[in-house]
Amino acid sequence: MLVVMKANATESEVQNVCACIRDLGLTPHPIPGQSRVAIGVTGNKGPVDPSRIASLHGVIELIHVTQPYKLTSREMKPDDTIVYCGDCEIGGPEPVIIAGPCSVESRSQIIDIAQEVKEAGAHMLRGGAFKPRTSPYAFQGLGEEGLQYLSEARDETGLPIVSEVVDTDTFDIVEASVDIIQIGARNMQNYSLLKRAGKSRKPILLKRWMSATLKEFLLAAEYIMSEGNSNVILCERGIRTFSDFTRFTLDIAIVPALRKLTHLPIIIDPSHPAGQRDLVAPLGRAGIAVGADGLIVEVHPEPEKALSDGPQSLTLEMFRDMMSDLESFSPTAHRDTNVTS
Amino acid sequence: MLVVMKANATESEVQNVCACIRDLGLTPHPIPGQSRVAIGVTGNKGPVDPSRIASLHGVIELIHVTQPYKLTSREMKPDDTIVYCGDCEIGGPEPVIIAGPCSVESRSQIIDIAQEVKEAGAHMLRGGAFKPRTSPYAFQGLGEEGLQYLSEARDETGLPIVSEVVDTDTFDIVEASVDIIQIGARNMQNYSLLKRAGKSRKPILLKRWMSATLKEFLLAAEYIMSEGNSNVILCERGIRTFSDFTRFTLDIAIVPALRKLTHLPIIIDPSHPAGQRDLVAPLGRAGIAVGADGLIVEVHPEPEKALSDGPQSLTLEMFRDMMSDLESFSPTAHRDTNVTS
Amino acid sequence: MLVVMKANATESEVQNVCACIRDLGLTPHPIPGQSRVAIGVTGNKGPVDPSRIASLHGVIELIHVTQPYKLTSREMKPDDTIVYCGDCEIGGPEPVIIAGPCSVESRSQIIDIAQEVKEAGAHMLRGGAFKPRTSPYAFQGLGEEGLQYLSEARDETGLPIVSEVVDTDTFDIVEASVDIIQIGARNMQNYSLLKRAGKSRKPILLKRWMSATLKEFLLAAEYIMSEGNSNVILCERGIRTFSDFTRFTLDIAIVPALRKLTHLPIIIDPSHPAGQRDLVAPLGRAGIAVGADGLIVEVHPEPEKALSDGPQSLTLEMFRDMMSDLESFSPTAHRDTNVTS
Amino acid sequence: MLVVMKANATESEVQNVCACIRDLGLTPHPIPGQSRVAIGVTGNKGPVDPSRIASLHGVIELIHVTQPYKLTSREMKPDDTIVYCGDCEIGGPEPVIIAGPCSVESRSQIIDIAQEVKEAGAHMLRGGAFKPRTSPYAFQGLGEEGLQYLSEARDETGLPIVSEVVDTDTFDIVEASVDIIQIGARNMQNYSLLKRAGKSRKPILLKRWMSATLKEFLLAAEYIMSEGNSNVILCERGIRTFSDFTRFTLDIAIVPALRKLTHLPIIIDPSHPAGQRDLVAPLGRAGIAVGADGLIVEVHPEPEKALSDGPQSLTLEMFRDMMSDLESFSPTAHRDTNVTS
Repeated sequence: MLVVMKANATESEVQNVCACIRDLGLTPHPIPGQSRVAIGVTGNKGPVDPSRIASLHGVIELIHVTQPYKLTSREMKPDDTIVYCGDCEIGGPEPVIIAGPCSVESRSQIIDIAQEVKEAGAHMLRGGAFKPRTSPYAFQGLGEEGLQYLSEARDETGLPIVSEVVDTDTFDIVEASVDIIQIGARNMQNYSLLKRAGKSRKPILLKRWMSATLKEFLLAAEYIMSEGNSNVILCERGIRTFSDFTRFTLDIAIVPALRKLTHLPIIIDPSHPAGQRDLVAPLGRAGIAVGADGLIVEVHPEPEKALSDGPQSLTLEMFRDMMSDLESFSPTAHRDTNVTS
Repeated sequence: MLVVMKANATESEVQNVCACIRDLGLTPHPIPGQSRVAIGVTGNKGPVDPSRIASLHGVIELIHVTQPYKLTSREMKPDDTIVYCGDCEIGGPEPVIIAGPCSVESRSQIIDIAQEVKEAGAHMLRGGAFKPRTSPYAFQGLGEEGLQYLSEARDETGLPIVSEVVDTDTFDIVEASVDIIQIGARNMQNYSLLKRAGKSRKPILLKRWMSATLKEFLLAAEYIMSEGNSNVILCERGIRTFSDFTRFTLDIAIVPALRKLTHLPIIIDPSHPAGQRDLVAPLGRAGIAVGADGLIVEVHPEPEKALSDGPQSLTLEMFRDMMSDLESFSPTAHRDTNVTS
Repeated sequence: MLVVMKANATESEVQNVCACIRDLGLTPHPIPGQSRVAIGVTGNKGPVDPSRIASLHGVIELIHVTQPYKLTSREMKPDDTIVYCGDCEIGGPEPVIIAGPCSVESRSQIIDIAQEVKEAGAHMLRGGAFKPRTSPYAFQGLGEEGLQYLSEARDETGLPIVSEVVDTDTFDIVEASVDIIQIGARNMQNYSLLKRAGKSRKPILLKRWMSATLKEFLLAAEYIMSEGNSNVILCERGIRTFSDFTRFTLDIAIVPALRKLTHLPIIIDPSHPAGQRDLVAPLGRAGIAVGADGLIVEVHPEPEKALSDGPQSLTLEMFRDMMSDLESFSPTAHRDTNVTS
Repeated sequence: MLVVMKANATESEVQNVCACIRDLGLTPHPIPGQSRVAIGVTGNKGPVDPSRIASLHGVIELIHVTQPYKLTSREMKPDDTIVYCGDCEIGGPEPVIIAGPCSVESRSQIIDIAQEVKEAGAHMLRGGAFKPRTSPYAFQGLGEEGLQYLSEARDETGLPIVSEVVDTDTFDIVEASVDIIQIGARNMQNYSLLKRAGKSRKPILLKRWMSATLKEFLLAAEYIMSEGNSNVILCERGIRTFSDFTRFTLDIAIVPALRKLTHLPIIIDPSHPAGQRDLVAPLGRAGIAVGADGLIVEVHPEPEKALSDGPQSLTLEMFRDMMSDLESFSPTAHRDTNVTS
């Protein structure tokens, strides 16, 4: 940490700040500058609570140098984490495609979609059973029945399944049924849920909240890892900005930026930022081109009849087109090795 | 709802959209324009799922006219809701000031602060016992012990107490202890928590999530009200924007904007957006001037020793100054009667 | 400036950075920390171009300590600047109210409004003659004819006049006619215009661009001051955010934040962020309560017939109501003396 | 346009609105709904000024249906515009790469870079001679001398040159020297400059301002086209959001979104949003993958010595690597033909 003093701070104010730093068990390093003094702080094992220092007379600003995330950090673990799930490797040499409907709507719906997306080249199946909805009056999902249908779709196709958990009360039954547990954007800072996920032995797909900073995103993953679960997949799904022609703004640069800071795999959800199906495939291609480890995409055979997220669901034909487009990307080219070196 | 057709939509595409609207049990009203046709939709009892229509050929855009919130709406209940709590009326003629530390830190700390803020004119006491923290390594609150100290502070001073609930597991014990249950910004879309709050008979102070739209904010309140609890207090606490000199941007215009749309009372938290104590009193004054029903403010006798949010906590002296500043506002002037008429 | 090294930076990388700093004529101060080294840099007379250092091996981040603005800074000039204009003092003990229509539409329109707003207590008259419009097909203002009518309105009422300049070509004629030259938000980084304004001897009212940071705003003022014109009035008029119930989000906290950093006066435009007239008076009250030195407000006797910005223009009755509301604010209370001390 | 009436609007209020619409020479179409009346408006040749209607009693909202841009619209001109420049086709089947330093710094610097980027596969040369800088104390470019060196670099290599124009005063000399005239983000709403550009016969590369909506971006192009210059190239270069790990957030979805609305070509600047060189190539790949017609990239042989934008400039080696990466993209795959059909 660096303590920046006001231009007119007195010598005794500087001494007082140094004394307070020593009081906290740390070491002050005053650096006299042309217009002001700054004081470097070392010796901290973890983040220092800045409030004691920030309030002292003569202090104008505190600047944090050491990052608060540890277990998620590439400094702690230089090698990439690969999350294994059935035959899939998320974070390995080839991008992984997870596809399926927003919501599980019926037994036949999910089994049919599973077979279709598998045939088109998808590696995993997604489908919502418990749905977080903005309005209390919207369809809330089939719940346990939906999980049962997902299991049957897995049995039929062999595709591992990904489904969202929305609270600690229903965590156990979701955990028992699925291969990867998704934590949605709205729950990225639901700390009770993150801690429960940290006690699970199943991989966690953690979506970035629409206004989370990169640092908050990593700290949410840190909550899970600090409870013992190191199989975390990060997922960018768009942020909230003034730009109003899409539902959210896909913050695509977070993929190479995260690659430098963390060893965890990173995938892209192109469906939610698009909000309309004809933008999904271009965003998906961009996601792979920027270096993501995979995509999670909403697909529905009859989007106009979908009970949720119909406008942004790809038709099966559009999904097949996207998959064949993606084949033109060389399999090893999706990872930018420069940024991790 | 209004369905806007493409400029070159054919007559048969228009007919097809009308047929689909009738299929949904609704009535289409085509309006031929100079460059395109639009189709008004009436007869809907609740929100119409737009996905079936949006995907039809020739449709360029859907525009929603009826709002999805109902119980929170001033159209449903024209008179202001007043939330009663002890002797306080939130939403009544005089603004209510809720003050106290970010976290309860000890028995003597909270009782001392309670006495001081009461003497300075505060109407209620705030203090966190269960704390949601961005980092898993930060102080997480005293939990039940903190609630016990809050109760003792209420016994000593008579001030009603406000404290945050962070999950459904600990809801019962918070509910049993406090007078107003706070739901923090990060939990504004934690629907399990909102539903549980809707079953409580205690008032709920609902904070706006840092990237919630006005509509999402009202729908979160709608979740609570739709479960039977109509004592909801809305609280603006700053949104996340590019503007980086404060912790969050206080979106002060939401007070008069909400006043037109909802009968619920609205208060302002000037501490979290400020992020630094010398901006708190100006933002608090602005909050009352814009017409808020009250303020919730962080106060600490020794902010430099606070275990959380020290930099933005007012000292007792600053709090007393702010309270005497606020007295110069005429008691009835804080509500802009024009906007509700 | 502070140079932060990577955790695994080698001693020779640190030495190389120090050599480069010395090369630039500056002094390096290495501070060895627990997990990494940071290097303080002193001796810079002005801002250091960071690119030479940022690219060296082992460097992870550069942190700037000295601010790039100088003439606008309160550190350079601790006393408040007061801009004098006729009998008005902008930045003095009483807030100044500037009112008038968005556009000058006719001789009688502007003279009538001038008389009405003067009677209601306004101190200055605003009115656009050259209008920057988003669409090339919208009304572009009366130009020189509009300036002529403004002058006549001043002659009739004695109110000083404020009008916008949109380019260097028409600067001379605007400058010759008006008492205060307004530079609009869209031109805040039009450096040719700022430099021309810096050569003027008339006061400049500089509006904040809807996505300017506080620092960019001060640097735009610095452009004007660095050419010799120190009569600059800063004006906050709302920023662009995701929040969509108003036209812009009024970033009210910038008033006390600027007060700490600069000696220049700061006013608020409540009309443009509101975008609808019934939010203007609440935002205006909040602007004065937060400590602004005045307001600039759009007023029109028949807003439904206005050629521009009708929806956000106050009627004369609403303006009179707002003025009488503002009288209840104690004249000396609008400035928060705490933040400047 | 659609006029939405309040739920409790009276019949005479509806009649009054209809009368006002007829007064404006337009035709009202009342649509009685379950909870309220809406009134469709047709017959407008251009955008209707809404203020006259918005202020009438009983009106709650106006909704615009017809878009304000015309000449830029794909509805007006269904076929893609191709901008020809020397041998280059911007908007044709293959993406065009424009590369070069942020600023022209010397004769040898720009000629050397031109030769290097040409050899690596670039199609055009960029370089700033007149530089808009946030701080008045930063390097402002070589001006006319820089343009002279650019011309020499073109003579040596045959690469067409792109350079920025910053004001109307220097427009003529920039126009005389360059092949494509760039209008920077900060000047996207400098209407005098746009009008001057519209009178030029050289192609205009128009950058999106960091907080422009899609609609404002197209209206800026409309300003140029409405003066007679139809050779406009749109360029996305990142928007301002809360997300702080990059300099700007690349809003990549605007490429397919614009493709649907306009016939103009669209390129991506990956350098400014990145702000750091190791993110530039991933963003460039994403730009081509999402369907852009080309890239404009900052390249410098010794970025650590660059006079501006050093941190985000690619080294020549990194540029060569990016170019060979881009070759793996099939030449015809960069345009998503689905979205234009």
